[in-house]
Amino acid sequence: METNIMEKETEQSFAVIPSDALLAHWQGHRLLTRKLIEAFPESEFYSFSIGGMRPFAGLVMEMLDLARPSMKGILTGDWSSDNEFGTNGHSPAPATKQEVLTLWDSTTETINALWPQIQPHHFEKVDMAFGLYKNTNYATLLYLIDNEIHHRGQGYVYLRALGIEPPFFWDRY
Amino acid sequence: METNIMEKETEQSFAVIPSDALLAHWQGHRLLTRKLIEAFPESEFYSFSIGGMRPFAGLVMEMLDLARPSMKGILTGDWSSDNEFGTNGHSPAPATKQEVLTLWDSTTETINALWPQIQPHHFEKVDMAFGLYKNTNYATLLYLIDNEIHHRGQGYVYLRALGIEPPFFWDRY
Repeated sequence: METNIMEKETEQSFAVIPSDALLAHWQGHRLLTRKLIEAFPESEFYSFSIGGMRPFAGLVMEMLDLARPSMKGILTGDWSSDNEFGTNGHSPAPATKQEVLTLWDSTTETINALWPQIQPHHFEKVDMAFGLYKNTNYATLLYLIDNEIHHRGQGYVYLRALGIEPPFFWDRY
Repeated sequence: METNIMEKETEQSFAVIPSDALLAHWQGHRLLTRKLIEAFPESEFYSFSIGGMRPFAGLVMEMLDLARPSMKGILTGDWSSDNEFGTNGHSPAPATKQEVLTLWDSTTETINALWPQIQPHHFEKVDMAFGLYKNTNYATLLYLIDNEIHHRGQGYVYLRALGIEPPFFWDRY
């Protein structure tokens, strides 16, 4: 049934999310994630875990490791990660929450600075994201956002388990 | 700084996500959520909780309560929920996981059947989603998807805490 629907739609497909709205959407989510980092007590940020999962610091480093090389990859086709940030969520977290927040903010600025260079042909290009995942670049961007929401949702449970009220899910301003 | 970027972009804004890709994206996420429902033991689906949060059944009902009236709302401007499904995540969950899955699947079919009727002017329209949230309809759709990913991420922690291996995050096929 899904196949039929997709065939029907191909005839009348059109794009629906403006590129500037997608940037604002991503940065809104990143701002909320930043609030969660701030909400964690310093030690629990690095140590608290449920069910053998990574502490929130590890989840946050994965977000940073994916976000940072993505702009370069989309614009140039070079998905190698730079030495500064390591590869695919395996970077060691800086020693303090403040240093993580500084890294977060510099990534925010990099994304904002490079985004306006991304043209329609960049978004539509099928590429091997991070050398591993074949997809259109717009789908890779959705994946990065989804992955951040997914892991941040896990951070919400950690905060609740610690007895800390997390920020509202819609508080992205 | 963010304001400057947004101003710059308005001059050259273009849409980047095809409507049929957005449908496939949402249904892929809904398929993964369905796998999580299946992965929960029957009783824990209705009872297991961490930090005072709702059991996964409650989170799933919120997803259903938002998804179901959204197609009607986007197409007609009528965001009232139907009697069958209640309002905004406050529906009681059906008594068995199987009944929840049946509801999930009928919602999948409703979305697939109505989506092709959504035209560019529907996506771009600013509406009061569910009578409460003023936004463009495409932003409301992103919100529904994000909200599902967020709560499903919490379901992942529940499963891990129960010692159950959840499906992979990318397993949406």
